Amino acid sequence: MAADANFIVTTYRVEGATDLEKKAKSIAVGLTVGTWTELPADKQKTMAPHLGQVVDVKELPPAADGTPRGEITVGYPVINVLPDIPALLTTVFGKLSMDGSIKLVDVDLPEAFEAQLPGPRFGVEGVRERLGVEGRPLLMSIFKQCIGMSLEELKEAYQAQIDGGVDLVKDDEIFFADEQAPAVERVKTFAALNREREEQTGVKTLYAVNLTGPVDQLVDRARRLVEAGASCLLLNVLPYGFDILHRLAAHPEISVPIMAHPAFAGAVYSSPNHGLSAPLLLGKLMRWAGADMVLYPSPYGSVAMPREEALGVAEHLRSEQPHHRRALPGPAAGIHPGLVPVLYRDFGTDVLVNAGGGIHGHPQGSTAGGKAFIAAIDAVTEGRSLEEAAADHPELRTAIEKWGVLVH
Amino acid sequence: MAADANFIVTTYRVEGATDLEKKAKSIAVGLTVGTWTELPADKQKTMAPHLGQVVDVKELPPAADGTPRGEITVGYPVINVLPDIPALLTTVFGKLSMDGSIKLVDVDLPEAFEAQLPGPRFGVEGVRERLGVEGRPLLMSIFKQCIGMSLEELKEAYQAQIDGGVDLVKDDEIFFADEQAPAVERVKTFAALNREREEQTGVKTLYAVNLTGPVDQLVDRARRLVEAGASCLLLNVLPYGFDILHRLAAHPEISVPIMAHPAFAGAVYSSPNHGLSAPLLLGKLMRWAGADMVLYPSPYGSVAMPREEALGVAEHLRSEQPHHRRALPGPAAGIHPGLVPVLYRDFGTDVLVNAGGGIHGHPQGSTAGGKAFIAAIDAVTEGRSLEEAAADHPELRTAIEKWGVLVH
Ligand SMILES: [Mg+2]
Ligand SMILES: [Mg+2]
Repeated sequence: MAADANFIVTTYRVEGATDLEKKAKSIAVGLTVGTWTELPADKQKTMAPHLGQVVDVKELPPAADGTPRGEITVGYPVINVLPDIPALLTTVFGKLSMDGSIKLVDVDLPEAFEAQLPGPRFGVEGVRERLGVEGRPLLMSIFKQCIGMSLEELKEAYQAQIDGGVDLVKDDEIFFADEQAPAVERVKTFAALNREREEQTGVKTLYAVNLTGPVDQLVDRARRLVEAGASCLLLNVLPYGFDILHRLAAHPEISVPIMAHPAFAGAVYSSPNHGLSAPLLLGKLMRWAGADMVLYPSPYGSVAMPREEALGVAEHLRSEQPHHRRALPGPAAGIHPGLVPVLYRDFGTDVLVNAGGGIHGHPQGSTAGGKAFIAAIDAVTEGRSLEEAAADHPELRTAIEKWGVLVH
Repeated sequence: MAADANFIVTTYRVEGATDLEKKAKSIAVGLTVGTWTELPADKQKTMAPHLGQVVDVKELPPAADGTPRGEITVGYPVINVLPDIPALLTTVFGKLSMDGSIKLVDVDLPEAFEAQLPGPRFGVEGVRERLGVEGRPLLMSIFKQCIGMSLEELKEAYQAQIDGGVDLVKDDEIFFADEQAPAVERVKTFAALNREREEQTGVKTLYAVNLTGPVDQLVDRARRLVEAGASCLLLNVLPYGFDILHRLAAHPEISVPIMAHPAFAGAVYSSPNHGLSAPLLLGKLMRWAGADMVLYPSPYGSVAMPREEALGVAEHLRSEQPHHRRALPGPAAGIHPGLVPVLYRDFGTDVLVNAGGGIHGHPQGSTAGGKAFIAAIDAVTEGRSLEEAAADHPELRTAIEKWGVLVH
């Protein structure tokens, strides 16, 4: 039923249900028309198009303690749902999220419904075009400190980062209280540095400014930031809600790429028995709602996502789809130059290499840290080893001496 | 530190950390100024007010498999955070939500910060005043079916519900596609029925209309619904985001109580090792953001919340606080008239008795179902047994014959 035009097809993993078929049926009826068998025949006729359908049930091997496990697939009539993420989530996992041990692992949308969701306005190709960078992973640097810093200090830190050759720089996602360096001032200041860099070197940079404030004013704030010269917006999607991402992405005047931060996402994807799968939450939903780039835990750092899930997120962000551009995955945390070959092997070319400590922790500073990364990225895309490239790039050599090269 | 004016005090339960003190320290530094020991002394001086503090660490008994467990309490400088839920959640559980086995169990706010959050505009007393009902639990009926129903059918169902004596009627939270009975038409139609009821009997009713649509238009939509005669708004808070609840509650023209639905909340509170505790999510956060009434799973139904948690939610909603009105808990699911004595014993007078099947499933229909509930509610507040009350109230007797009386 995955390709069905009339149903939103959802898959759940459940524990503890002894009769999967009955459980599936009660979901299909309970979360659509509410009641069925007791309806009079003529009412059943008018209600039939709104009735959920059991698509599939499958027993899974029981849990270690013998608890039965299963997979249930239910189709929700698309005519019951509005084309937005809140309506979708409330319908397929509103009440059901509270129904014991149940995890929403996948959702497939009818094409005509999916087409009504914005998807990325820029996507991989649009971001590359803005940067003028082809054929290699993009490099992003994260400010080491934002809170408590003056505009002058941040300006200096910004310059040091772009001098290292990074493609993007992003605010810290926890940067809310910014009286000393208000967002609009940062945007103006860093845009000027970006212009200067471009005039001198021809190289472009995007600055992802943290979009904060009352949710009903975020569209206006984003518009004003774009007017002031913003080149990219950073949004904490879960805390603010998926729908504001949708509205920002769909707004004609907010003509810059949007970078989704996964703050709070762990509260939803981490449990094996509750919430949503990471690939659905950070892959499908983020892309449907319009994220051009999505940050999430890499499989490498101390804050790590299991490898298969991290690849699953990237797969959903970048798969070819009829209506939506491909989005750029940014598997972050624990990234240093010596990890670039593994990252490249796992995620390929269309990936955002996202580093904080791996740039600022370089023994010669943030600029050298950026250069080391660029040398590593160039090496892997040219098929050379980091050791080979390090011979021509002292910054990379120093980075390898500090962090090593991940061998796999 | 709970009463500290300068820190937001948060408590986490963690598994797997062998050095709790170290873990706590890395949270306190990493999620505020980012780095500390390597800062020059003069920079430490300017950054000190922004630095997080370890308040407490406590070992807990290890998990069954020997994994160490602990409780960590961290103070975040309130000057780092804006007075809204997205800033709060991103700061205290943004990145951290993805950091392995960690659950956010509690948050205490400095009074001056809490005062900047709206809290309920009406609260328990305001809702009672609108209804003119004192000294007994309030009764709410949930439409049995909304999706696919015509306005005429819903009107009939509405009338049957209010004829039974219920105080409130609510839409199904999954009612999005309402072309046959648009929200504004429902509001006008049911408001007329409410007026008629009041003229004839002096009894007032609130109708909680499901607020849906683009999040950046919800304030306008709410305003138009209120203009059309809406007496209460139903909001799926998690899917739309806490901040839109905040903005609706704080808006001067949206002068009706707001009822929070817990759709999707199970994705966040259900896991013992991830997400947020139910009392924090559905108690504190909902009240801070401005919910007047909060629905959530009762400890009684098949979709049940553990008793202690359900009482914890109610405790946070109703505790006396310096800046915020008390909110009304609505422990729902599995409620029938025979359960009213237990509900009353557990939750007291200031509670919303919230029933769907327990009203519509009455053998004599929805009106009799409402009457049975009111008889049960009157009985418990007068200190009479249901069996005694059933002698004078045939509808209650029939209900008890069907569902029995929960003995405890
Ligand atoms: Mg950060
Ligand atoms: Mg319902």
